[in-house]
Amino acid sequence: MTKETNRPTYGVVISGCGVRDGSEIHEATLLLLALEKAGVNARCFAPDKAQACVVDHLTGESEGNGDRNVLVESARIARGAIQPLSALDPTSIDGLAFPGGFGAALNLSDYGLAGADMRVDEEVRAAIEAMHQAHKPLGFACIAPVLAARVLGARHPKLTIGNDAQTAAHLEAMGARHVDAPADGVVVDEVNRVVTTPAYMLASSLSEVARGMDNLVAAMLALGKAR
Amino acid sequence: MTKETNRPTYGVVISGCGVRDGSEIHEATLLLLALEKAGVNARCFAPDKAQACVVDHLTGESEGNGDRNVLVESARIARGAIQPLSALDPTSIDGLAFPGGFGAALNLSDYGLAGADMRVDEEVRAAIEAMHQAHKPLGFACIAPVLAARVLGARHPKLTIGNDAQTAAHLEAMGARHVDAPADGVVVDEVNRVVTTPAYMLASSLSEVARGMDNLVAAMLALGKAR
Repeated sequence: MTKETNRPTYGVVISGCGVRDGSEIHEATLLLLALEKAGVNARCFAPDKAQACVVDHLTGESEGNGDRNVLVESARIARGAIQPLSALDPTSIDGLAFPGGFGAALNLSDYGLAGADMRVDEEVRAAIEAMHQAHKPLGFACIAPVLAARVLGARHPKLTIGNDAQTAAHLEAMGARHVDAPADGVVVDEVNRVVTTPAYMLASSLSEVARGMDNLVAAMLALGKAR
Repeated sequence: MTKETNRPTYGVVISGCGVRDGSEIHEATLLLLALEKAGVNARCFAPDKAQACVVDHLTGESEGNGDRNVLVESARIARGAIQPLSALDPTSIDGLAFPGGFGAALNLSDYGLAGADMRVDEEVRAAIEAMHQAHKPLGFACIAPVLAARVLGARHPKLTIGNDAQTAAHLEAMGARHVDAPADGVVVDEVNRVVTTPAYMLASSLSEVARGMDNLVAAMLALGKAR
């Protein structure tokens, strides 16, 4: 809990604005709604760096490196209320959550290019490690669990990305244990205090994503209370 | 009702991706969620034309005309499932809804520059007029009711944009009758079959926007059944 109120405060790490080169917009929006409904203050963060690429979401074709900045584009989802990830003080938040979208695999890491040989952005890695060392809950949706697999792989976290065999194999190659889950289900690793949900890795509707985000937040809050 | 199913189909007109130069992302997402929860098929449309401008959502400063296309950026919110507004056949849909965001005042019209002297994009005007003539429900959130005021002003539609005096005066100058409403309230014009809700003209939370969108859709469905 933060000291000034009885409401917990969670960080949300956004990775751009749009499923193909940033954060999946419905997931990010419905995560913020789920936090609000659960009585959690949300603070948005994003890395202040160039996007790995810009993808035309109408055609699905890459427009190349483009000239977009992850923090500036993420501010579209956050309505301007966002800070650079470098400004995140892990002692100021009670939990940290990552919506999905390929931005997690392109801007927060290079999973989209390197698979199980991926590297995680250093600010993202530091934030995840700090939260883990403080025994605070971490949440990851859609493809974002690859970040947990890479950073926390030595602790063999139990994670889900739904049921995609290749992605699950990549998680396991990085040390994680993969568990299948439905679109709106969650997998809870109580030891490592990590919650994951498949969201649009499997979802075919916004309602499924909304339920999954509600479940993710509820499970994170339960882990926080169990500290 | 569409012929092939018992579920109604509504069009949703998106105006870019981000509150300051396109559609407000939470409003658009929560409108799509509200439609889905109410059993309505949603089809997204956007004008295929250059954005009026690009705004840095971190600083709030304009980046000038930029090089972004309304349809291409709108596709981020729609996850690629979107068509040019020129492809909209009004006989194929049972209702048409517009989320807010300054895109409604910059890309769907020039209200943001011209106030009560505003002009409406010709494809947007044609879509609104066709729906109105077919006695099908129209919905507008946030600042988007300016479109209804301009296109339907001669029929003196009853509308809300919340309680902002200057914007309300502009609506009335265009022929509309303005009614104050709370963030999640709706104003229903049963004669003209138009529903409006203030959303982020007044809302300070995603929950208020979510409730407002649920109320908007429920009121549109009730008007549709009353045909």
